Amino acid sequence: MVWVRISKSDSLLFMFLFALPLRCLQATQESPHVYTREEVRSHSSPETRIWVTLGCEVFDVTEFVDLHPGGPSKLMLAAGGPLEPFWALYAVHNQPHVREMLAQYKIGELSPEDKVPSTLKTSDPYIDDPVRHPALKVNSQRPFNAEPPPELLTENYITPNPIFFTRNHLPVPNLDPETYRLHVVGPPGGQSLCLSLDDLYKFPKHEITVTLQCAGNRRSEMTQFKEVRGLEWNIGAISTARWAGARLCDVLAKAGHQLCETEAHVCFEGLDSDPTGTAYGASIPLARAMDPEAEVLLAYEMNGQPLPRDHGFPVRVVVPGVVGARHVKWLGKVSVEPEESYSHWQRRDYKGFSPSVDWDTVDFDSAPSIQELPVQSAITEPKDGETVQSGEVTIKGYAWSGGGRAVVRVDVSLDGGLTWHVAELDGEEQRPRKAWAWRLWQLQAPVPAGRKELNIVCKAVDDSYNVQPDTVAPIWNLRGVLSNAWHRVHVHVAP
Amino acid sequence: MVWVRISKSDSLLFMFLFALPLRCLQATQESPHVYTREEVRSHSSPETRIWVTLGCEVFDVTEFVDLHPGGPSKLMLAAGGPLEPFWALYAVHNQPHVREMLAQYKIGELSPEDKVPSTLKTSDPYIDDPVRHPALKVNSQRPFNAEPPPELLTENYITPNPIFFTRNHLPVPNLDPETYRLHVVGPPGGQSLCLSLDDLYKFPKHEITVTLQCAGNRRSEMTQFKEVRGLEWNIGAISTARWAGARLCDVLAKAGHQLCETEAHVCFEGLDSDPTGTAYGASIPLARAMDPEAEVLLAYEMNGQPLPRDHGFPVRVVVPGVVGARHVKWLGKVSVEPEESYSHWQRRDYKGFSPSVDWDTVDFDSAPSIQELPVQSAITEPKDGETVQSGEVTIKGYAWSGGGRAVVRVDVSLDGGLTWHVAELDGEEQRPRKAWAWRLWQLQAPVPAGRKELNIVCKAVDDSYNVQPDTVAPIWNLRGVLSNAWHRVHVHVAP
Repeated sequence: MVWVRISKSDSLLFMFLFALPLRCLQATQESPHVYTREEVRSHSSPETRIWVTLGCEVFDVTEFVDLHPGGPSKLMLAAGGPLEPFWALYAVHNQPHVREMLAQYKIGELSPEDKVPSTLKTSDPYIDDPVRHPALKVNSQRPFNAEPPPELLTENYITPNPIFFTRNHLPVPNLDPETYRLHVVGPPGGQSLCLSLDDLYKFPKHEITVTLQCAGNRRSEMTQFKEVRGLEWNIGAISTARWAGARLCDVLAKAGHQLCETEAHVCFEGLDSDPTGTAYGASIPLARAMDPEAEVLLAYEMNGQPLPRDHGFPVRVVVPGVVGARHVKWLGKVSVEPEESYSHWQRRDYKGFSPSVDWDTVDFDSAPSIQELPVQSAITEPKDGETVQSGEVTIKGYAWSGGGRAVVRVDVSLDGGLTWHVAELDGEEQRPRKAWAWRLWQLQAPVPAGRKELNIVCKAVDDSYNVQPDTVAPIWNLRGVLSNAWHRVHVHVAP
Repeated sequence: MVWVRISKSDSLLFMFLFALPLRCLQATQESPHVYTREEVRSHSSPETRIWVTLGCEVFDVTEFVDLHPGGPSKLMLAAGGPLEPFWALYAVHNQPHVREMLAQYKIGELSPEDKVPSTLKTSDPYIDDPVRHPALKVNSQRPFNAEPPPELLTENYITPNPIFFTRNHLPVPNLDPETYRLHVVGPPGGQSLCLSLDDLYKFPKHEITVTLQCAGNRRSEMTQFKEVRGLEWNIGAISTARWAGARLCDVLAKAGHQLCETEAHVCFEGLDSDPTGTAYGASIPLARAMDPEAEVLLAYEMNGQPLPRDHGFPVRVVVPGVVGARHVKWLGKVSVEPEESYSHWQRRDYKGFSPSVDWDTVDFDSAPSIQELPVQSAITEPKDGETVQSGEVTIKGYAWSGGGRAVVRVDVSLDGGLTWHVAELDGEEQRPRKAWAWRLWQLQAPVPAGRKELNIVCKAVDDSYNVQPDTVAPIWNLRGVLSNAWHRVHVHVAP
């Protein structure tokens, strides 16, 4: 049972891949055209025609793209590759009439050697990384860092596990849930805990919807102003899941820890490590960790399934309202210390600086580690450079704020910020002071007659009435974090 | 003992005023020039010459203004009037050599009928309002609303009581501390409390430094963009004091209230009321009120003295990190309700809206009442339009954020926001998550050679890395609240 050791959400994808040869045996025995995966991959645009595969069958869907009920852009995400990973996300496809419709476009089959993915054997430390969803936009393969495309990002309030943005700093460990242990260091004179997964399951199970965002989300907009060091995240380094696990405060209390008057920090260590054995690490203030209302979790479930390997299987920290970097994955050790974690990522990264600070003058000790994030929003539809119809335009996006602060309003402008419309907020009702999850929003607005282009802008307001800054230059910083200026999209209007 | 019923800080001022005739009896019996207060008042600029009074003596300090150790602008605040209220703020003046220096400038004495202030008798409901400090910049006399001038605002980390900004909605009640009672409504089936001041003193005394800010602070900058309804506050509707009193959570617990799972609100009613008997009122969420870490106070002391009448004598609410409007003064009643206060000021005022909303379209129910305020900062020195010396310029100001979020950085620009300097933060060290008080800041920066003017800008960052918006137009709202765009000051450089 190999897939017991990987998460169930990965297993969905695996089942599709391994199921291919089986289906092919049942296919018709006429002599179809045979194509390699390489040939299919080269047909991914209207110019080259648009091919996709389902099982061992190959389809030319060029004529169907504009008829796709979910919109052409969503189908184009699969152009040149398999449909299964996308159909797995959107159950609406699993109906006979969809298969019949697709059958009309069949042009052949995959060659026998292409029916199962080839396996590679190298000394690459990343060789054991899990298979990923092809829709993810990859910013770095080793370590793996990828985000969902804007078209899919706000398609669901809860982000499906396979396309949840992934931020890895190191190779993904392959941990055995049977032998996994979490070490919780006890207080001085107290006793440490060594918890198996079963031990962790015995704590009260707590389930909450939490949005995670990378500090580098929207970094690519900062880079446009001036070079920074960091991965080129677009607007998708943010996703939302329903997380379940034990509350950190319950586990710390069991180990004998109490809230103390002096400042203290809960340090987390991951089981992912670099070739020198240095593990990923981070910390949060003890006051947050011990506050039941802050709902910090040691999570073992993500959207009702065991954590996917990319998201920390079998246990990760979830710190609602706080930057992703503190949600340590593959959690190995928890301890309470008088100082913040000495990890590179706590002390020499994930901090904000003035635009005047460069790599020659930066003093990392002068800035606090990022914990709660500022108010944020972005436009996921339409896309920059797109042509929209005249008459009415539909604009969609997300908005979120750190620290449990609810988004109370999203303003949208079609004229670069001169005049504003108030967008409609969708998504779950949030509890006061515990608005851990984003709001999706949309606006239908008339396109002013005669306009040939629109400068669409969005900005959100949270319940402390914090707002986003107008422009990116004054918040530029050398690491390109905390990029939350108004999001701007320029589109053309069809004549 | 009339002054027992007013606060001790007012009494300082009263003592100066009533002490005048006594001092005059001791003055020399030569025949000095005699001037009326009206004549003195007309000498308040270099053109008319600058006169001030101390006791019954009149001085022409025109030649001294530029020699004033505290700077000419501070002495000019007293031009045409008495020195006592200013000397009361700055103890450094109470030295023999200061009086000797002043004596050189004596030109005469006040006329006998001007030695004590005249009393007025009218049916004005504000007739019983207390005497105020002359340094306050008055935005409205009835009700009284006034702010300290920028020169004094950041002179002290703790704002002296007589110049603490005052925001009254109604006439100031004149309450007898002997008969004062605070009514605390008990839970259903429980018992209500009726607390005297002595009863309140029996709760553990809790003392904290808290900055209060009016939602309308810096409204005048919004007005410059487009008209709003509201008082024309400059940058001084913010002040800091050391408050002491009983914790609200202790008083609510004594009345039998507990934190409940359902949403609830603590409603406050003031003893100030309009001619129809409607009292000022406001509410805060029960979760904040019951959280000992939120440190909500029923305060009876301000900077070590009983509350001044203008600031709620004998008891006011202090809600750290929250907009001034919820810090109900002259507190008469506390109750726990399933809904927010039905007061006008909770439901039909003190809310933020999109710039697109006007008085024809506004729906007050669509926005949350302002509670925590967003990050804020302003420049108190130099003043707009001032001429600064070439070489080096000193810039001073304040920065604060709501919700206990600490200010972690203030960026200052001399070129309208193109390049930035990091200011030095002064003031008390703040506790994590309890940064209730402002930081004062300053920057000494070289004036770039050849520059004839400077566009000085400041912006602050709090520990959730929230920042201020660049410009005021996109946050403009019909009531002119939440004005926290970059503060801008334009100065000339002396050749």
